[in-house]
Amino acid sequence: MEERIRCKPLRAKITDPTTAAGFIQNGTNLFISGFTAGYPKLIPQELVRRADGGERFKINLFAGASTAASVDGSLAAAGLIQWRRPYMSDRTMRRMINAEQILYKDDHLSALSQQVRAGNWGPVDVTVVEAVAISEKGQLVPTMSVGNTPTYVKAADKIIVEISTDPAELEGIHDIFIPEDPPYRMPIPIYRTADRIGKPFIEMNPDKVVAILLSPETERGAVFRDPDKISRDIAARILDFVEHEIRKNRLPAGLPWQSGVGDVANAVLSGFIGNDFFLNLDIYSEVLQDSVLELIDIGKVRAASGSSLTLSQKARSRFFDELYRYREKVILRPAEISNAPEVIRRLGVIAINTAIEVDIYAQVNSTHVMGSQIMNGIGGSGDFMRNAALSFVVTPSTAKGGVISAIVPMVSHVDHSEHSVGVVVTEHGLVDTRPLTPRQTAEQIINKCAHPDYREQLREYYQRAVRMAGGHEPHLLKEAFYLHQRYLDNGDMRVG
Amino acid sequence: MEERIRCKPLRAKITDPTTAAGFIQNGTNLFISGFTAGYPKLIPQELVRRADGGERFKINLFAGASTAASVDGSLAAAGLIQWRRPYMSDRTMRRMINAEQILYKDDHLSALSQQVRAGNWGPVDVTVVEAVAISEKGQLVPTMSVGNTPTYVKAADKIIVEISTDPAELEGIHDIFIPEDPPYRMPIPIYRTADRIGKPFIEMNPDKVVAILLSPETERGAVFRDPDKISRDIAARILDFVEHEIRKNRLPAGLPWQSGVGDVANAVLSGFIGNDFFLNLDIYSEVLQDSVLELIDIGKVRAASGSSLTLSQKARSRFFDELYRYREKVILRPAEISNAPEVIRRLGVIAINTAIEVDIYAQVNSTHVMGSQIMNGIGGSGDFMRNAALSFVVTPSTAKGGVISAIVPMVSHVDHSEHSVGVVVTEHGLVDTRPLTPRQTAEQIINKCAHPDYREQLREYYQRAVRMAGGHEPHLLKEAFYLHQRYLDNGDMRVG
Repeated sequence: MEERIRCKPLRAKITDPTTAAGFIQNGTNLFISGFTAGYPKLIPQELVRRADGGERFKINLFAGASTAASVDGSLAAAGLIQWRRPYMSDRTMRRMINAEQILYKDDHLSALSQQVRAGNWGPVDVTVVEAVAISEKGQLVPTMSVGNTPTYVKAADKIIVEISTDPAELEGIHDIFIPEDPPYRMPIPIYRTADRIGKPFIEMNPDKVVAILLSPETERGAVFRDPDKISRDIAARILDFVEHEIRKNRLPAGLPWQSGVGDVANAVLSGFIGNDFFLNLDIYSEVLQDSVLELIDIGKVRAASGSSLTLSQKARSRFFDELYRYREKVILRPAEISNAPEVIRRLGVIAINTAIEVDIYAQVNSTHVMGSQIMNGIGGSGDFMRNAALSFVVTPSTAKGGVISAIVPMVSHVDHSEHSVGVVVTEHGLVDTRPLTPRQTAEQIINKCAHPDYREQLREYYQRAVRMAGGHEPHLLKEAFYLHQRYLDNGDMRVG
Repeated sequence: MEERIRCKPLRAKITDPTTAAGFIQNGTNLFISGFTAGYPKLIPQELVRRADGGERFKINLFAGASTAASVDGSLAAAGLIQWRRPYMSDRTMRRMINAEQILYKDDHLSALSQQVRAGNWGPVDVTVVEAVAISEKGQLVPTMSVGNTPTYVKAADKIIVEISTDPAELEGIHDIFIPEDPPYRMPIPIYRTADRIGKPFIEMNPDKVVAILLSPETERGAVFRDPDKISRDIAARILDFVEHEIRKNRLPAGLPWQSGVGDVANAVLSGFIGNDFFLNLDIYSEVLQDSVLELIDIGKVRAASGSSLTLSQKARSRFFDELYRYREKVILRPAEISNAPEVIRRLGVIAINTAIEVDIYAQVNSTHVMGSQIMNGIGGSGDFMRNAALSFVVTPSTAKGGVISAIVPMVSHVDHSEHSVGVVVTEHGLVDTRPLTPRQTAEQIINKCAHPDYREQLREYYQRAVRMAGGHEPHLLKEAFYLHQRYLDNGDMRVG
């Protein structure tokens, strides 16, 4: 392990977790690597150990996006977190955020590194990074994600590095480019998905390194379910529609694809496997999942760009075994580049993102259950949806075995307005809202996307709203949430 | 006038409005110049004349943004419009859109030209453009706006030109650049507000010109009110805040400014006049109004870039009289460039946009009154708010003499989610939401931004929501619109 620290003077900084974590005290702004993958393992454990030992302290925790139960979950449960930004997906942390026991602010991921460099998040007291190596000149080679790490390292007062056992051959997969800050700066020079514009490592001032840990911990793989019928149906509808648009000459061929995080999104990319219209794919996305490896294996990927690789245990082994081959196709970038509006719009990405609920006018809720309770966060969905050449919002038509309709009269929280939505898809149907008025959209979403169990009552609401309120987007403010309210009262949105 | 058609063969196309309008028939997709200013005058009149004469026909009308009562209003009143895109602000048209008598789809303005080029809006049957001149090679010099005109001309089957009496010296003020379309294209090469990247005219295929009209009509100036105390208070708060952030080193100096359309926005820029901290302004905006000329007059403007100049009658005369001087500072660009997310983000624009209402969690309604009735449209507000380095949402705290609170528990329609909002400002106060959780935002917006008449009941709702619903953004779905409902029932949101 020690030979991975090629900058020999830094080897003197190798120490134990207790000593390293000593730099983190009550009130520390702690910035960590991690963007679904690639988070530090030892320092969080040690902080929890201190809390378990009775020490009372709070930190402000900033990562690239979500981490894992072993970080977000454990630190939250130990009562150690005052503030957390910008995205999480942990059950315990979620509960505490919803109780305002942890302060949380959810933001478009593309915008954050710049805010940190501008000092808007306060001083970067300590940055903890997971890396596979430190170069001769003290540059860092990260593990399976980049996220905001380059900026967190650049802005840090003190840096702690956890050297991971992930293969050192990851070196070369990353493309690190920190743009300048406004008002005087040049374009982000990515013109094709495959373009590399930066360096294969993160620049680091070795003088700021206060501790290096040799970490025996390996990351637990993500858990994906095999695509179920609903996901496969949604995927098939999307691919059919895009093929149709290309054949009709309404969409250029060769646009890159983005697909959000999770099972449905993973299923959509898997849908390309048996498809013989789409042959040579560019993927310009945020989180790359198992399906990307499968597509590489069958020779369908020209380039896959993202800010992290989040793989199941099995895919992870395969990836590490044949890294020499995957590395030619995969590029890991900072989140401000993977999610850059400039690049997404320039390339004309086809974006596919999931929703908690969509309303009849195609307003989208990605974050809040029943309007109040945050689920995870907006993540990069806004970066992609707003700037895509074509934007799909996908959701199974119901949740919780049918007692919740994902198509509602009015969403209980809006993250993406109708103006950023192109096509709405459920397993029942697809509506291209782009050439429709809001009223036409409502009729079609009710008739095509809603679950048949809910169509009648949605139609009844819509028709009454047209009659009684009128307007461009007829709504009855007194009843707009009647489905939600029925669920809150009875545990079932259906007429009982 | 005829000498303005420097491409002599085209002079043979000079004709009368009746003949020219003959190319427009039932079902024609009619694309016109116009982006608050610079719309054609004669053809709309002639179409109305035909309708008045008993001819029954419908057209689909596409402009850059809003036009004027003489276009949108008259054509709507004559029952001539089937479809209208993408933005309007006319009273008659609004009424008919809200009754679905005119089909309307409101979109982010930055995204539209590309959709038209992709064929998503159907064939461009006829394009009517107002111009001050046609060059020797048949290129068009537009009048006071650019909007989507370059693309409408490029994609047109047939072109009709109205030669305006606006001064020919407008030649040189425009900067026309049509970006390529995805997936293979290069950056938009604007690195500074003042950069010119295109040509001073719109490329046109002279073979497509079917008619040229010599128009005696001059445009009626816009009507601005002198800034009232509320607007001046809002303006002062914004300038104070930005100065403070720059002094604290949390915001770089020299960021360009954008200010939305209307009186409050105009007042904000006027606020710079007596201010001695901001000396050398870049304005990277959409619609330039009177205040920009005043700032040029006192030597405070380095460059002012927009897609149109919408001036009062008085400012218009001044502008035309000293065009030689203003032309050095003002650049008129296509809307897809003035509003380009890529450029707005690169330059780090400070954006100021108005709202119909803002809720306690800083969700913003820019378009729909009481959730159903559209006012104008989203226009470019989303392009700027989402991509700004710092985004202000401004509104007087009440409307209609106090019976409507612009700060509500939940907005009745969402155009911009909290994630795209930086700072909320009313005449009563300013809240920087960026470092706050939603609950902290709610407390501050209620205490600082809401009108004192409404604070108590907003506080009562919020506290009850915290207690009864909890969550990251506590809401009582049953009551979230109780202020709106009270207004709908009683004509007053106040407890009565």
